[in-house]
Amino acid sequence: MLSFESDYTEGAHEAILKRLVETNREQTPGYGADPYCEAAKAKIAAACRCPEADIYFLTGGTQTNQTVIDSLLENYEGVVAAESGHVNVHEAGAIELTGHKVLALAQKEGKLAAETVSAYLKAFYEDGSHEHMVFPGMVYISHPTELGTLYTKAELAALSRVCGEYKIPLYLDGARLGYGLMSLDTDVTLEDIARFCDVFYIGGTKVGALFGEAVVFTKNNAPRQFVTQIKQHGALLAKGRLLGLQFDTLFTDGLYFTISRQAILMADRLKKGLKEKKIPFLIDSPTNQQFAVLENDTLRRLSSQVGFSVWEPVDENHTAVRFATSWATTAEMVDQLLALL
Amino acid sequence: MLSFESDYTEGAHEAILKRLVETNREQTPGYGADPYCEAAKAKIAAACRCPEADIYFLTGGTQTNQTVIDSLLENYEGVVAAESGHVNVHEAGAIELTGHKVLALAQKEGKLAAETVSAYLKAFYEDGSHEHMVFPGMVYISHPTELGTLYTKAELAALSRVCGEYKIPLYLDGARLGYGLMSLDTDVTLEDIARFCDVFYIGGTKVGALFGEAVVFTKNNAPRQFVTQIKQHGALLAKGRLLGLQFDTLFTDGLYFTISRQAILMADRLKKGLKEKKIPFLIDSPTNQQFAVLENDTLRRLSSQVGFSVWEPVDENHTAVRFATSWATTAEMVDQLLALL
Amino acid sequence: MLSFESDYTEGAHEAILKRLVETNREQTPGYGADPYCEAAKAKIAAACRCPEADIYFLTGGTQTNQTVIDSLLENYEGVVAAESGHVNVHEAGAIELTGHKVLALAQKEGKLAAETVSAYLKAFYEDGSHEHMVFPGMVYISHPTELGTLYTKAELAALSRVCGEYKIPLYLDGARLGYGLMSLDTDVTLEDIARFCDVFYIGGTKVGALFGEAVVFTKNNAPRQFVTQIKQHGALLAKGRLLGLQFDTLFTDGLYFTISRQAILMADRLKKGLKEKKIPFLIDSPTNQQFAVLENDTLRRLSSQVGFSVWEPVDENHTAVRFATSWATTAEMVDQLLALL
Amino acid sequence: MLSFESDYTEGAHEAILKRLVETNREQTPGYGADPYCEAAKAKIAAACRCPEADIYFLTGGTQTNQTVIDSLLENYEGVVAAESGHVNVHEAGAIELTGHKVLALAQKEGKLAAETVSAYLKAFYEDGSHEHMVFPGMVYISHPTELGTLYTKAELAALSRVCGEYKIPLYLDGARLGYGLMSLDTDVTLEDIARFCDVFYIGGTKVGALFGEAVVFTKNNAPRQFVTQIKQHGALLAKGRLLGLQFDTLFTDGLYFTISRQAILMADRLKKGLKEKKIPFLIDSPTNQQFAVLENDTLRRLSSQVGFSVWEPVDENHTAVRFATSWATTAEMVDQLLALL
Repeated sequence: MLSFESDYTEGAHEAILKRLVETNREQTPGYGADPYCEAAKAKIAAACRCPEADIYFLTGGTQTNQTVIDSLLENYEGVVAAESGHVNVHEAGAIELTGHKVLALAQKEGKLAAETVSAYLKAFYEDGSHEHMVFPGMVYISHPTELGTLYTKAELAALSRVCGEYKIPLYLDGARLGYGLMSLDTDVTLEDIARFCDVFYIGGTKVGALFGEAVVFTKNNAPRQFVTQIKQHGALLAKGRLLGLQFDTLFTDGLYFTISRQAILMADRLKKGLKEKKIPFLIDSPTNQQFAVLENDTLRRLSSQVGFSVWEPVDENHTAVRFATSWATTAEMVDQLLALL
Repeated sequence: MLSFESDYTEGAHEAILKRLVETNREQTPGYGADPYCEAAKAKIAAACRCPEADIYFLTGGTQTNQTVIDSLLENYEGVVAAESGHVNVHEAGAIELTGHKVLALAQKEGKLAAETVSAYLKAFYEDGSHEHMVFPGMVYISHPTELGTLYTKAELAALSRVCGEYKIPLYLDGARLGYGLMSLDTDVTLEDIARFCDVFYIGGTKVGALFGEAVVFTKNNAPRQFVTQIKQHGALLAKGRLLGLQFDTLFTDGLYFTISRQAILMADRLKKGLKEKKIPFLIDSPTNQQFAVLENDTLRRLSSQVGFSVWEPVDENHTAVRFATSWATTAEMVDQLLALL
Repeated sequence: MLSFESDYTEGAHEAILKRLVETNREQTPGYGADPYCEAAKAKIAAACRCPEADIYFLTGGTQTNQTVIDSLLENYEGVVAAESGHVNVHEAGAIELTGHKVLALAQKEGKLAAETVSAYLKAFYEDGSHEHMVFPGMVYISHPTELGTLYTKAELAALSRVCGEYKIPLYLDGARLGYGLMSLDTDVTLEDIARFCDVFYIGGTKVGALFGEAVVFTKNNAPRQFVTQIKQHGALLAKGRLLGLQFDTLFTDGLYFTISRQAILMADRLKKGLKEKKIPFLIDSPTNQQFAVLENDTLRRLSSQVGFSVWEPVDENHTAVRFATSWATTAEMVDQLLALL
Repeated sequence: MLSFESDYTEGAHEAILKRLVETNREQTPGYGADPYCEAAKAKIAAACRCPEADIYFLTGGTQTNQTVIDSLLENYEGVVAAESGHVNVHEAGAIELTGHKVLALAQKEGKLAAETVSAYLKAFYEDGSHEHMVFPGMVYISHPTELGTLYTKAELAALSRVCGEYKIPLYLDGARLGYGLMSLDTDVTLEDIARFCDVFYIGGTKVGALFGEAVVFTKNNAPRQFVTQIKQHGALLAKGRLLGLQFDTLFTDGLYFTISRQAILMADRLKKGLKEKKIPFLIDSPTNQQFAVLENDTLRRLSSQVGFSVWEPVDENHTAVRFATSWATTAEMVDQLLALL
């Protein structure tokens, strides 16, 4: 059955499979100490125009968030995030497992405003009882957000300024980063992200890889003994070269961007199609996740014909659903979906 | 350069790559709710003759140990293990990260004797101050051990009895399980392991897979909400089908056993060759890891020609090294190594 | 300088000191295994009309919350609390340190409504992605709340019903329980609390003791090996009899209630005095904490003459402050404060 | 019944009770921000001849070890301790609860030799796989040890040198520090301890106080936001002045030392008496804990007449027991015990 349920329903881009096959019997050292990881790091650093970047590869998003956040925070600190942030809602308490609180702030369309963060930090330090409270030790944002929305360059700059003022790192979860960067409606580049963030990760799992996320510490600021900390969090892949090889492929000849663009074009095709059918949107998303509001009858009928995510009830007769495109989505698939609506 | 450094230097068995390629564009639900995982579980349960088994797939060994142990222990309990056990020495404190102590007991050739465990448990409960001590909540063993040695069926049965007497689970780390089961010198079958252990894992990473471990709860005794706990530990793979597909392949037509046998035959060829050259062994290992004692001059010369692990100094002029064979090792590779010695 | 800063500015009720002096050279076993603890437990169980109660004594409130909550929750569970709850705001992340999330819900006047909890639990289990979320494992309330307000008997009964429906315990933080029970405006008795809650604690630190909180598991439901868990959390007092002796004294001849009543009468005297002076209140508190709204000029002048807590700014010219009475407050002290306003 | 079971069977030295009574109705700020804590800190710093000391008061020993060790270690570090160390055996896993491993090394008479630590650290950094191991982040010793033995000045100096070489702190658990310093057979002064250790605590609970331990960071090296970390560990006493007042009393006119000396003289009286009766010792302890080897018949008879701790079986007919004297032990009590043997 055709599915728009998520951007991780298929395997990997064929260029990756090809290289897996080609290099299969090569022998390399484990745990990331191999030439493929080295090559991938160099290409990513170049793409970020950030030669001093420290780069590490992990397997999945929750794992990456858990390891990076726990490693960067002091014992007495928590991570500031949007109430709707992945670390606050959909990681089963992975952050708290490592002893840290998620300090959830109000969001708008999935985004955390610099003003909100700034007001929170100011109030925290003015509060006479803050010695009994969890210190805000870093700021976590996702780009695109859980709702597919994007920060503008000005918004990122403002967040970066606030973090700088309070000397806490800004961390960007880029599980779907490619789809953000290739949006038709963004002024933010990879280079901007490397400049504004202290650490971020480039998502592979949802953008063409079998699995894998590339963590970039942009200011030569990787936590001490970070490989040991990755191991401690159960996140060190024995055959680390699998990660290096995938990212090396994705960052050769701009493949990461090309395939991300494909997802965006397909999302745009879908968006236009939905508009033509007068189907309203829950939110105006410029990326690969489209949130349509369907009549419940339509939803029921459609659910036996195509895969998608039920997002949230809108009113008695309407429900918001999510259609996700990906690097693997074709025009035929989109047209097939539209034909069913 | 030829390498016997570990059993994770190559990619995966080609049958696995083939299926990855074949199924690549299929769309499946994420997080293990796909038909490949279902099929793999059925095949593993059948291979274990354990129809009531609860089976889950995780990515790596440390991750698996951390998640399983944390999920099975009560807050006030620790895990009993050999001093040389992987969880005690080489997981960077992954068990302690989740709040649990490793209760390390004396070992012999990497093995934990039932008598040792029994004496410890008896003494614990007789100690007047045990209310101030960490309760022994499970027993962890690895098979093969870190030193390549194997438990006999009688030894496993005895450990199982002790655990049963104290009502604590017996957990077997099978990172290299295939190499144990296919040893030329073992009376232990997969079925025995399923019968004697409350939970164990079948290692894929070191036995033909790109990555992956299959956790088997043998008595319908998976921890409550185990998927959530996997997620919480950062260990839930988005494209879970990759794990299902690999184990489905490995447990089709006995591939797991066939390729494990290959590693054992190669280890045996190496062992015989070393013996012919009068090279002594640190320990008599019946599995894929062979621990040879080299003269330091030989070691230095060899290290520029072939990869291996330096294990430990034996005396001023000798050092123990480890040569690991794997499913990917060929007779030519072994002969090449022997020719260099 | 006269102080209304908190209810822990003095030592202990003199009856406690007297008994400390009288029994000082008696020799008793440590860690709570002494006759004073036994006697105190019997008296508390009787006062709660809860003969099957399991009772333990700890030193302070945060310690008690941390130990009780960690012991009752499963790994994958969090504690539901009001956004303003002590565990969410003022315990420096003590709950998260033990690996659990505080699931903060909207509150009204410091109270968590049964409807809010019920709606949350319902939505949680209906959410298709709840397997990736922290499970709500217990409900935490405080009585009186952080704002001095009280639940009614009907409100407690409703919360108890919701918890019962979802089979999760209701835990009541009674750091200031005496002041709640002796309020002039409450229909809730100690017996009610023992009936509605699965566990609660009777605060001693703020109600006449030097320190100490009595945890009551009302349904013979103390966590397994709870003494060990107390020890593990660094919360087991060597000279446990100090806790027993204090609670034995407080629960002899109703001393706990008599001295709580004194605080309430003094709060009422203060409240009336403030009303006469037309000083408005931030909230209408029926307990020992009174939240008055002062002009900033008044606040500044007053702060050099008397101790109190600055609560929060109300508008540009006004600030809410907290005056706390306690068992040690006298009419003279209240009149002295009123004379300064 | 007369008891030599431990050094925490009585209340507190009467000078402490007297001051508790005298100051009872004084009003002071909470959480240690009171003049008694200030005064006590000044007196302790002076006694240590360590004007730059950062001093904090906590309630009990396990709590102190847990909070100090967790605060000083990096995420990826563990604490090196003797196998017999309190943190390794008798704290119910309090260290592991905070995510850190206890790296247990062989001991002799309860003591950790500098050579043992040095060899361990050297081997750790030489081990090619140490990136997968827990980093040794501090060294924990107790003085007196669990077996009543004492380090010499030379031994402390050597441990201090090793720690300095590897840039990790040396932490001394002084739960019974007074009894160590006043031993008739020691060359170690409080000043020495302040000089050799990076942090240590002066035990109050077992040495004349109702409860309380004074943590001394000797090199202006208290962890950042340490009060918040104390709170986070549930270890911040609301009425902090109780701790200040007790230590202020103990460090006025040398009371801490005078009463410690009394325990030592009584232990010496007991030791001589036991020797006269030809009762052998398990170990030659120069402090307040005496470990005698009794015939099992004697043990049985004695146990109905006097309190003591059963330590460990020695052979079929003999058992080692512990008699502890304290500041509260009188010559009459010792003579009464001796008369029973």
